[in-house]
Amino acid sequence: MISHHPITLNPRGRGYHIITDEVLSGVGTLPKTGLMNIFIQHTSASIMINENYDPTVREDLEESFNRIVKEDEPWYKHTAEGSDDMPAHIKGAMIGFSISLPIENGKLSLGTWQGIYLCEFRNAPSARKLIVSLYT
Amino acid sequence: MISHHPITLNPRGRGYHIITDEVLSGVGTLPKTGLMNIFIQHTSASIMINENYDPTVREDLEESFNRIVKEDEPWYKHTAEGSDDMPAHIKGAMIGFSISLPIENGKLSLGTWQGIYLCEFRNAPSARKLIVSLYT
Amino acid sequence: MISHHPITLNPRGRGYHIITDEVLSGVGTLPKTGLMNIFIQHTSASIMINENYDPTVREDLEESFNRIVKEDEPWYKHTAEGSDDMPAHIKGAMIGFSISLPIENGKLSLGTWQGIYLCEFRNAPSARKLIVSLYT
Repeated sequence: MISHHPITLNPRGRGYHIITDEVLSGVGTLPKTGLMNIFIQHTSASIMINENYDPTVREDLEESFNRIVKEDEPWYKHTAEGSDDMPAHIKGAMIGFSISLPIENGKLSLGTWQGIYLCEFRNAPSARKLIVSLYT
Repeated sequence: MISHHPITLNPRGRGYHIITDEVLSGVGTLPKTGLMNIFIQHTSASIMINENYDPTVREDLEESFNRIVKEDEPWYKHTAEGSDDMPAHIKGAMIGFSISLPIENGKLSLGTWQGIYLCEFRNAPSARKLIVSLYT
Repeated sequence: MISHHPITLNPRGRGYHIITDEVLSGVGTLPKTGLMNIFIQHTSASIMINENYDPTVREDLEESFNRIVKEDEPWYKHTAEGSDDMPAHIKGAMIGFSISLPIENGKLSLGTWQGIYLCEFRNAPSARKLIVSLYT
């Protein structure tokens, strides 16, 4: 049995944001046993798992991916939507747009140091739409 | 209930190709509510989601990943299968080989600007095998 | 129907390790038709698919990701847990923490050259916890 739960995340500025609580409260009671798939309906923001404790991890993630995928490369052709747009699609290709997580005993089976991240690659904050699917 | 649908994609040259229609026609009628998992049975081509509209996005993806993961690095040891092979495995590690997508009202719940991509990392075109799994 | 199978992997040193057999023996008999989701409960080790034959592929993967994501960058802020820790989180963001694989005729539908990898990004070997979920 599969149920889909659309969630619209509050707009956030560019950066790496932990959204575990927003996802959980958007979905409501979890099944006792199951899986959760999280899908983001965009191509310039990603969903991932990463470290949930030290805020400097999020700052270092932002800086690292900005250095690996630079803005304003002279050979970019897709430039009409702003200097942050093509890098957003490349970062999205690397980090991805869907993850699947086990649910045991009515809880997400995240490791101690794991949180769910929204990676916002655009400068302008915008509401981002997720579809959280539960299957049991 | 799970059903598997093997699809052999037409051979394409190196690059980033939108295959949404080929996947959908290979699977047939979608269930009203469910999930689709797409798995590619190769390690030098990836499946991903990305922008479905401007062809220059695909050209910039090709150029970007070629610059992040270079060919002919003097320290590569796995060189027997050609200069495009080891970079293919590295790009594949980054972009990935499986994605999961929600199905609502008999349609894939893709965002407006999202398409399904085959990322072909090898120069020589070859048929690529997918297994598309539907669960309801 | 979903069943979860926790697996504790033997500690391995930093590098790229094929764990297909360890996953399969930890799960036991596979269903005739289904899907397997593998989730790793850590943020400094990844699960992925890659080439299963030539050991130099694993050496080149280690070297490549070490060059793309360097240690001891002077601008890293998250340094308290060692010089291999922040790079581990960045590599993990790229490679990912969950994959989904089809099961047909009681076997994983891996391609001929595909294996399941543990990517261990930390220098110190430690036991890594997976949750392997089967759904039928």
